[in-house]
Amino acid sequence: MSSPFLTASQHADAQALLDRLISEHKPGYALQRAFQTDPGIYQLDLERIWRRGWLFAGHTCQVKQPGDYFVFDVDTDSIIVIRGDDERIHALHNTCRHRGMKVCQAESGHVGRIVCPYHQWSYARNGELAACGGMDKEGDLDRRDFGLHRMHVREVGGLIFVCLAPDPIPFEEAERSLGALLRPQGLERAKVAATRSYEVRANWKLVWENNRECWHCNVNHPQYVKANYDNAPIDDAALKHEIEARARATSAQLEADGIAIDYQEAGLVRFPSRDCWWSINRTPLVPGWVSESMDGRPVAPLMGDYSTRDVGTLRMRTMPNFWDHASGDHAVSTRLAPAGPQRTLVQVQWLVREDAVEGKDYTLDTLLPFWELTSEQDWDLCEKNQAGVSSSAFTPGPYSTRREYNVIRYTEWYLQEIAKP
Amino acid sequence: MSSPFLTASQHADAQALLDRLISEHKPGYALQRAFQTDPGIYQLDLERIWRRGWLFAGHTCQVKQPGDYFVFDVDTDSIIVIRGDDERIHALHNTCRHRGMKVCQAESGHVGRIVCPYHQWSYARNGELAACGGMDKEGDLDRRDFGLHRMHVREVGGLIFVCLAPDPIPFEEAERSLGALLRPQGLERAKVAATRSYEVRANWKLVWENNRECWHCNVNHPQYVKANYDNAPIDDAALKHEIEARARATSAQLEADGIAIDYQEAGLVRFPSRDCWWSINRTPLVPGWVSESMDGRPVAPLMGDYSTRDVGTLRMRTMPNFWDHASGDHAVSTRLAPAGPQRTLVQVQWLVREDAVEGKDYTLDTLLPFWELTSEQDWDLCEKNQAGVSSSAFTPGPYSTRREYNVIRYTEWYLQEIAKP
Amino acid sequence: MSSPFLTASQHADAQALLDRLISEHKPGYALQRAFQTDPGIYQLDLERIWRRGWLFAGHTCQVKQPGDYFVFDVDTDSIIVIRGDDERIHALHNTCRHRGMKVCQAESGHVGRIVCPYHQWSYARNGELAACGGMDKEGDLDRRDFGLHRMHVREVGGLIFVCLAPDPIPFEEAERSLGALLRPQGLERAKVAATRSYEVRANWKLVWENNRECWHCNVNHPQYVKANYDNAPIDDAALKHEIEARARATSAQLEADGIAIDYQEAGLVRFPSRDCWWSINRTPLVPGWVSESMDGRPVAPLMGDYSTRDVGTLRMRTMPNFWDHASGDHAVSTRLAPAGPQRTLVQVQWLVREDAVEGKDYTLDTLLPFWELTSEQDWDLCEKNQAGVSSSAFTPGPYSTRREYNVIRYTEWYLQEIAKP
Repeated sequence: MSSPFLTASQHADAQALLDRLISEHKPGYALQRAFQTDPGIYQLDLERIWRRGWLFAGHTCQVKQPGDYFVFDVDTDSIIVIRGDDERIHALHNTCRHRGMKVCQAESGHVGRIVCPYHQWSYARNGELAACGGMDKEGDLDRRDFGLHRMHVREVGGLIFVCLAPDPIPFEEAERSLGALLRPQGLERAKVAATRSYEVRANWKLVWENNRECWHCNVNHPQYVKANYDNAPIDDAALKHEIEARARATSAQLEADGIAIDYQEAGLVRFPSRDCWWSINRTPLVPGWVSESMDGRPVAPLMGDYSTRDVGTLRMRTMPNFWDHASGDHAVSTRLAPAGPQRTLVQVQWLVREDAVEGKDYTLDTLLPFWELTSEQDWDLCEKNQAGVSSSAFTPGPYSTRREYNVIRYTEWYLQEIAKP
Repeated sequence: MSSPFLTASQHADAQALLDRLISEHKPGYALQRAFQTDPGIYQLDLERIWRRGWLFAGHTCQVKQPGDYFVFDVDTDSIIVIRGDDERIHALHNTCRHRGMKVCQAESGHVGRIVCPYHQWSYARNGELAACGGMDKEGDLDRRDFGLHRMHVREVGGLIFVCLAPDPIPFEEAERSLGALLRPQGLERAKVAATRSYEVRANWKLVWENNRECWHCNVNHPQYVKANYDNAPIDDAALKHEIEARARATSAQLEADGIAIDYQEAGLVRFPSRDCWWSINRTPLVPGWVSESMDGRPVAPLMGDYSTRDVGTLRMRTMPNFWDHASGDHAVSTRLAPAGPQRTLVQVQWLVREDAVEGKDYTLDTLLPFWELTSEQDWDLCEKNQAGVSSSAFTPGPYSTRREYNVIRYTEWYLQEIAKP
Repeated sequence: MSSPFLTASQHADAQALLDRLISEHKPGYALQRAFQTDPGIYQLDLERIWRRGWLFAGHTCQVKQPGDYFVFDVDTDSIIVIRGDDERIHALHNTCRHRGMKVCQAESGHVGRIVCPYHQWSYARNGELAACGGMDKEGDLDRRDFGLHRMHVREVGGLIFVCLAPDPIPFEEAERSLGALLRPQGLERAKVAATRSYEVRANWKLVWENNRECWHCNVNHPQYVKANYDNAPIDDAALKHEIEARARATSAQLEADGIAIDYQEAGLVRFPSRDCWWSINRTPLVPGWVSESMDGRPVAPLMGDYSTRDVGTLRMRTMPNFWDHASGDHAVSTRLAPAGPQRTLVQVQWLVREDAVEGKDYTLDTLLPFWELTSEQDWDLCEKNQAGVSSSAFTPGPYSTRREYNVIRYTEWYLQEIAKP
């Protein structure tokens, strides 16, 4: 595999740089500067991480009816996610097979056929070429050869994942794990209540490093730490005891529904293994909080199969571009997309149950602030981090094994994946 | 020849990429992605196309009097086109021979001498160094060695062409062909009624690919297809018959003036040969249309030697940067200039006879919309095309030989020229 | 030494280009285009000039109290200049030793400790790591290894210089020369009355070329040439006589204070030698001018040890980023910082005596215009110069030995420094 935006010698140059960086990387320490600034490394990131892994694209509830679609951009790639007449979801490259026109311009919509605005090549909802009138060779041109380029797509618990590689890495195990815990949340029966889009002037890996620890939370996320325990150090014995008690209490309440808090220590949950690109778990909220809202009170009707409000939070994250925090009454999905060595596009979406009515069952004023604030506080940190990492004097420092174990794990995962030729 | 903005190894790298692209190009198919995105290929385009070919710069009527000038920018080169005291037009590089100051800042104007604002080196209207007071060596410095760098310039039928190469490709045959058909239009006795400047976020070659076919016209240019036949497929027998009849009728009217419709089939006129960088022809308008205006009615006084309004349209295009559509009462010139791998600057100018008075003989409200709309619709298509071609999944598709024969011809011309070392 | 933003092969490529440019450079002529445009040469400039030489950072009066700091950015490096508890000034890299966060976000301020906003690593005012609570290894992690990266810093006559190299070039001789002449100006007892920041779209070397001659002054700086003699050619005998007389007269007035005009010819003072990165001298103003103000009249109270207003101007410049013009009543410091091959950030600061009160002792309306106009006129010239130098047709022209001797000297200095591997 090669990078379509590097020449052969630029690719060799980037590989040589990568080899040196990997051999000089100190385990347990932050990544070196060039990982966060070099345009060649960025292209290798796209080649080996972004065009190989499973990317979260959006929610099944965004494409309920055949012909519903939305568009997801990853660097210069544009992906159409559309529900076909076969009721299945298809993921198609947004580039006409004729002369490469971007066929869908809107961020989302509904179509009978996907018609290229240039010369009206028309594609069925599953991407097959249906008509290309005007082609001299239309008779002998085999339309089966000219459908929109397809990519692999998987659904689990209302989430849509796509993979740009011809031979994707396995999805089955992730599907089992995520599916089991996602079930009671009912994301398939949700709707998107609000979407916020951000441009973060930082490498996508700095956004992940920020996400993979909560040491920064106490000072930077005052609203978040009121609701959650994960800012706490994992070895605070008294707190550990409190959390375990709280976990047991919440689990007891949930027993009837067959749900349990599966997380029993302070700090962020550990990623299962270095090879694993997903993790999911249910965590208790602090007493008095039944939702990740500003005051801990409910902000929307109960979702899914829940019969009680105090369900803690269901959290998941999948490498390289997704995390989600779900309370009993709403879920918040965060989707990353790289857009340059020092530029990441982020979309945050708030979901509530599909029949909830804005103004009646929920208001954006109470639904949004908790994660809107938390998100924007993080983007600000990421940008300041990028600014300092770009210094010629930057030397990677040590991670705390107590506080940043998941950053270490994340860094190991990244170095393992980027090293695969 | 080399590229002033590439190092030796970057040039070798770009050449290797080009060699691979050319060898992998499938005849009759669109150009591959790197042709439209790679910075090295862009520099080769500048080196082999833009600094070798004849570039349309502007109109003789823009520099009527000695000292009149305008400036034309091609990537980072800036060209002064000025009428000298010898009444001839000179084309000069806009960079002082002292320390490289851009000597003319305005887009156009009138000067007695070209005086550098930095240290007042002063150049005659033909570019010769006239004074450089303050130079210690002014006495022994040979002023003949320090005139503004000149380039070749040619005029034909009121159009000015420049060539940045020391040994330009031949102009004579183009001069003959263009001159003969341009004569009755009287562009030398015209004036510029309006100018519109655009920045198009697309490679200059995508702008040409857009221009070289009218398959996209039916849906995208509603006003254009009311007036013109070239949206039609070349093999529609009934339409071909209609056009031929219309051509004969128009020619008959023009017989007295010694002018004829020299184009008798539907579709866009074919470029004469792959080697040829120009073409010109007269085409009938649809019945009822005597001008490329929104309703087909005249929008200005008759130009040049025409004695009747129904003269069809005189059209020409010269590679790599010019096309013009002239009705009996006005002409519209489009000039391209590359400004980056994915950025093209376009200037569109509307010309009417020189003694026409705005508000009395013509109004911009009726003169401009036809080509202003058509142009802006095209730039929008070009930008969407660039967006899709930049996808890592883009694979060039087949051109229609019935509808895109001139795109094929254009692509052949480009691949031939860019391959010349 | 290497460039942190070039790969090994990019560095070799830049070095090869540099070697060719140096071998082809014609003494007494302007620098070739690639010196002002090439990204690789720009990185060598950073490596060999900007991260080796003594850079003017600011004034001691900007950091009067322990904990006072300001930030100075050089390309992607950010430097904190702070007064420590030891009353000494420290220069620290603005990048946390943990994960590289930019620790100081404000341009200036006052701190007890420098606390990283990310995870609250806290540094003493001298950069030493004081606390990093949360580090698992905090006990065994040796805090002495994790202070903010320091750089060398020197003070002379109220000016602060920093050097990013581990082994700086000598400062002592500069300290002696600058210190002696700066003494009466009293910059240590001054305050910053105003600051203007500019982004100039030109290579930093074109800004210096502009600064190193006053041939351009007559036409471009009408206010400047009213006050100063340096626009005059050095070999105008009558003027030389006038200036010498004026210098003697001013010196006589200053005798009591032990100060003298040490400059007795027209034109700009010559740099002492090609190896020398500083120069300083006192120059007479034209009769009737006792300050570099619009009308020559005082604009603020006398500074320092001066007992009379007519002290001429004290001028100094240090390579690669500083010049200052001081009248008896105010001083104007100009600080450069590169921010890209064709982008330079400039900060201009006006200083008056520390107890002067705005609105009472001085007004910005009369203090600023002289140098605000002169500066902005120069940035405009620099940008036009860059535009012309970027032309593919640019060929460096000859400097005037009478008018541009200091540009020649500057060019020699630059070529000498950049050639050092």
